[in-house]
Amino acid sequence: MMDRLVIIGLGLIGGSLALAAKQRGLCNQVIGCGRDPEKLVGAIGLGIVDQVSGDWEQAVAGADMVVVASPVNAVEAVFERIADCVGTDTIITDVGSTKGSVIAAAQRAFGHLPNNFVPAHPIAGTEYSGYEHAQADLFVDHKVILTPHAGSAVAAIEKVSALWQAVGSEVVQMDSSTHDQVLAATSHLPHMLVFTLMKMMADRDDHQAIFDFAAGGFRDFTRIASSDPKMWRAIALANDKEVIDLLTQYQAQLGELVEKLADGDGDYLQQLFSDAKLARDTHLVKPNE
Amino acid sequence: MMDRLVIIGLGLIGGSLALAAKQRGLCNQVIGCGRDPEKLVGAIGLGIVDQVSGDWEQAVAGADMVVVASPVNAVEAVFERIADCVGTDTIITDVGSTKGSVIAAAQRAFGHLPNNFVPAHPIAGTEYSGYEHAQADLFVDHKVILTPHAGSAVAAIEKVSALWQAVGSEVVQMDSSTHDQVLAATSHLPHMLVFTLMKMMADRDDHQAIFDFAAGGFRDFTRIASSDPKMWRAIALANDKEVIDLLTQYQAQLGELVEKLADGDGDYLQQLFSDAKLARDTHLVKPNE
Repeated sequence: MMDRLVIIGLGLIGGSLALAAKQRGLCNQVIGCGRDPEKLVGAIGLGIVDQVSGDWEQAVAGADMVVVASPVNAVEAVFERIADCVGTDTIITDVGSTKGSVIAAAQRAFGHLPNNFVPAHPIAGTEYSGYEHAQADLFVDHKVILTPHAGSAVAAIEKVSALWQAVGSEVVQMDSSTHDQVLAATSHLPHMLVFTLMKMMADRDDHQAIFDFAAGGFRDFTRIASSDPKMWRAIALANDKEVIDLLTQYQAQLGELVEKLADGDGDYLQQLFSDAKLARDTHLVKPNE
Repeated sequence: MMDRLVIIGLGLIGGSLALAAKQRGLCNQVIGCGRDPEKLVGAIGLGIVDQVSGDWEQAVAGADMVVVASPVNAVEAVFERIADCVGTDTIITDVGSTKGSVIAAAQRAFGHLPNNFVPAHPIAGTEYSGYEHAQADLFVDHKVILTPHAGSAVAAIEKVSALWQAVGSEVVQMDSSTHDQVLAATSHLPHMLVFTLMKMMADRDDHQAIFDFAAGGFRDFTRIASSDPKMWRAIALANDKEVIDLLTQYQAQLGELVEKLADGDGDYLQQLFSDAKLARDTHLVKPNE
């Protein structure tokens, strides 16, 4: 139980964490901060926060924990703004989808990596954005990855971990570069592939027919293309090297597939499809599916 | 209401059509045929068919309609086997995912395109295979595309259309080459992309971490990789030219994305993602989502 939790950026993730913390009684007071606090006033009525504030300095001073839930490209400016007013006892954490870039931003903004800073990334979300879509149970049974830096204090790690466990998450730790590699593969690459496909389909003269005859498989496959373009611009740029590496590897795999198709090599195709199906059935099908 | 409906191949589609026809009382008798009828006996107990038969000649003779629901690479052998015993009053149709290849197979097997032959493709399915997964409502509110050839009799088209409407489908017509282009885009290409991605992930040393940290988006995105490899081998080969064309275009699009990422061109990325999101939100989000 803490006294004051400050969440900067009330998007889907920040809003859901605020709501979950309030509903579960994890703190006396949740303050939501944003560049334009008037846009956040609705979050009070929805029971997401107790107060909204444009005076971050006042909100942050004396907070037990500050969660930066801004898009990853805005994190550095947030760190800069709070650097001089956040107390050394206040835990600083974030929810960004890329961790190398967030740590580099902290290094620049604070001039060092504070002991009370613990980078984090909840592996949860939907294709919707904004606190209006906040769900108190968004993190239940989802993983949260902490990527502490070498100087992160154990007590700070434990407090961030305790917050996420208290909202229902399973907390794991890894180094930030492993995080960025894994997330590039499981999230960033798939988003790039689906955005690219949807754009290619939309640009066709017969796109109306394409979408008219899309079945459930296509709808599921493309769901992530409904995600927020600004957020994904930021993520792609923040993890560009990993994403480029994977896209380049993937292009090579597609090139091999094209060759084998042109050769009519049915055995290759069947082996490829079987290996893919085995991997998905083994690792990604829930027991009750 | 017809007397005898014969379905050759009791997979998910053939089995579901049989079950729907029986439950809705669309015929007096449904006979399921397969190469190995002993494997189909279970379908009688599940209420999917009235009889199973390995004596296709007897089953087909006097049938009102024969639905060939075999994988697309097996359709030609089925046509050859029934060519001499099917009556000229018997409607012949199929459910194949590729239509140019099925029409070519009919031309070769029958020596001409029979007037009573109406190619069809229900745009429905799941990632599961086999009559054990048959669902009587599989086709409800799904589209069925008929691709009649120039000589298909109007009465035959109407009877095939009536069957699909009676199981809840919306029936549309288009020529077979348009069908094959549209389906390459909405179904065949996405399957190739996801099979390729799953294989690439499975081959990584850190694949366990990849799959452990895959969130719901990845699970949805890769659902179609659990589809039947043999069926997809056949579809890919049967529509190879369209699939190769699209894969080649897609590779070029990915190449452009890689260049723009390497340039750090955020405006390009945001425009791409926005266009993709707009297309999906406009065309693929159901009103109640």
